[in-house]
Amino acid sequence: MSLISNIPYHSLTIGQKIAFTRPITAADVALFAEVSGDHNPVHLDADFAASTPFKEPIAHGMLSGALISAGIACHLPGPGSIYLEQQVRFMRPVKLGDVVKVELEVLEKLPKNRVRLATRVFNQTDQAVVEGIALVIAPTEQQHVAMPVLPHTKLP
Amino acid sequence: MSLISNIPYHSLTIGQKIAFTRPITAADVALFAEVSGDHNPVHLDADFAASTPFKEPIAHGMLSGALISAGIACHLPGPGSIYLEQQVRFMRPVKLGDVVKVELEVLEKLPKNRVRLATRVFNQTDQAVVEGIALVIAPTEQQHVAMPVLPHTKLP
Repeated sequence: MSLISNIPYHSLTIGQKIAFTRPITAADVALFAEVSGDHNPVHLDADFAASTPFKEPIAHGMLSGALISAGIACHLPGPGSIYLEQQVRFMRPVKLGDVVKVELEVLEKLPKNRVRLATRVFNQTDQAVVEGIALVIAPTEQQHVAMPVLPHTKLP
Repeated sequence: MSLISNIPYHSLTIGQKIAFTRPITAADVALFAEVSGDHNPVHLDADFAASTPFKEPIAHGMLSGALISAGIACHLPGPGSIYLEQQVRFMRPVKLGDVVKVELEVLEKLPKNRVRLATRVFNQTDQAVVEGIALVIAPTEQQHVAMPVLPHTKLP
């Protein structure tokens, strides 16, 4: 178990940021293919990908969306947040082996505990790969939540 | 291998729809937790979820986003599409055991092979759980693409 703390609405400030990095592996892309149902060979087959404009396998765009959603749920504002809206713009492909940085920033505090966040994903050369905006209801009370550790999932 | 055909830009028509259904299982939610990094117990722990406004475990909202992205990549317009933008509004939670229907509809054909799609997800009682809009570059040529079958992924 790891213990995750949220940032309640009253403690959020405009400009407040969190960021975390994550390597994107072939295993991540295979898991995302499995859970989404998108087995397109541009993500899974290097020979096929070589015949596309991308030249090499790329991650599913929405894998970056999944990482953004995890950043909101676990970090800013964290546990107790209710996700209302997300807009994403896919600017560049994420390639297998890239290390992406997810950055969230408080843009606006709105009535009824709503918060607008900038949601950005960069690759290891600081190029923006995804930009977007999220709208969430922030939690009103401080919580410290134990996150279950899952057995590590692998393709057999 | 299953063979998936795309619908090139010139064959797309306003109002054209595709839909597919998908049961949402505890295994799906565990896989999404693993690949996103969001191990929040509201998704994974029935006892914890009972203490939340949701009362029972719910799927990650962005799992519906992943299914939408798969519908675009595999069905409408299908292989060869380039995903530019997605906006989603999370309207109701998806509960474990729900069977969701993903529906995509061509709203607008734009210059440079761009297409705007309505992206909707319903639960088994026809309640909208997610609504949104996607912008994609549709493929210009008919393709029939073999989708690799992945070994079925399970938590050990």
